[in-house]
Amino acid sequence: MLNCGLADLRLVQPRDGWPSPAALAAASGADAVLEATRLYERLEEAIADLRLVYAATARRRDMNQRVVTPREAAREMRAAAAAGERAGVVFGPERTGLDNDAVALSDAVLMAPLNPRFSSLNLAQAVLLVGWEWYRGAAPEVPRQRRRPGRGQRATSAELVSFFEHLEEQLDAAGFLLPMEKRPTMVRNLRNLFLRAAPTEHEVRTLHGVVTALSGRRKGEG
Amino acid sequence: MLNCGLADLRLVQPRDGWPSPAALAAASGADAVLEATRLYERLEEAIADLRLVYAATARRRDMNQRVVTPREAAREMRAAAAAGERAGVVFGPERTGLDNDAVALSDAVLMAPLNPRFSSLNLAQAVLLVGWEWYRGAAPEVPRQRRRPGRGQRATSAELVSFFEHLEEQLDAAGFLLPMEKRPTMVRNLRNLFLRAAPTEHEVRTLHGVVTALSGRRKGEG
Repeated sequence: MLNCGLADLRLVQPRDGWPSPAALAAASGADAVLEATRLYERLEEAIADLRLVYAATARRRDMNQRVVTPREAAREMRAAAAAGERAGVVFGPERTGLDNDAVALSDAVLMAPLNPRFSSLNLAQAVLLVGWEWYRGAAPEVPRQRRRPGRGQRATSAELVSFFEHLEEQLDAAGFLLPMEKRPTMVRNLRNLFLRAAPTEHEVRTLHGVVTALSGRRKGEG
Repeated sequence: MLNCGLADLRLVQPRDGWPSPAALAAASGADAVLEATRLYERLEEAIADLRLVYAATARRRDMNQRVVTPREAAREMRAAAAAGERAGVVFGPERTGLDNDAVALSDAVLMAPLNPRFSSLNLAQAVLLVGWEWYRGAAPEVPRQRRRPGRGQRATSAELVSFFEHLEEQLDAAGFLLPMEKRPTMVRNLRNLFLRAAPTEHEVRTLHGVVTALSGRRKGEG
């Protein structure tokens, strides 16, 4: 990370606890990054303040999510940073990688186009590739402005998750997310659909209002 | 190396001997590369058949040598390969890096422009960066595939409009799209939000179901 000018490391339930003497020994002088590391119990908390989240994965998934290369992600994150929006990349555990629920919390899947017959990288290598493209992106390429002026600030992950939970609570009450064994997939697909739209803070408030309006009168009458 | 389609590994006096059980254990299935590895007593022999040689180093040197980035080196090596000329990159031992004699045998110094205050990479990371730029250089920008096969067909405008009208009808019934003079703007903003997600036919059917579920029980009870 520090090779590429990155210093904001967040860990969710690190396997070997924290602080980790082994990590410190392997850090080759990048102690400052480790000392500033923040710990979280859940991924949702770790990404709560981010407005643009990528899930780094080597596996193809059947989820309806945009897939970007490290270079494209770097370009988008540069543009977000220039607009004052925090962006981040979620990496999975060394052996298992990210699970589908983690991927479903992300705006896009970040996949490095590597040798298709040998595409899995270890965690350190994956972080380096993403960091390298980010760092390289500082100078040569002009960030593309994806957002039109006046569209408003993109919602944070915390705001999105709060809307998702509101929607899912009401859908549970209405008996929509059944049978139970299909619920996780249905929830992921719905979340993904809204994430693809990259809603603004204002739009997330509107969506809350839509769910309340559609389900609210129901409760009042029940 | 194999992540990046590279398989020609040459070792000069490997510190731990060869073959190395530790290397095999760390290779995660890239055994073919290790099995084809060639051993040499001297660097001069290892690079004897190459016509273009880079010395990878993180340190600035006072030698009058051309310095290229991994991306530039990748471009030059691609051109050499296209002309039938073998090219290679020399990496130094993990701790000490390349000595000046090794650098002097090279056509150019390959240096990755990293954080100047923390620029040293470990050997595996350095190899990955060079390999990545080499592999990426094969197809400058892999055609972007924003939508994976199997995601299903994008909904038609008619299908989208049918969903919009269903949603708006229910929101009207719930008194959400008020005051009337603001209704056109609210409708446009909501439609725009869903349009940005570019839903598939299947997703539009799910959205219909969500609106029916949230508002349906309400009607049943009313």
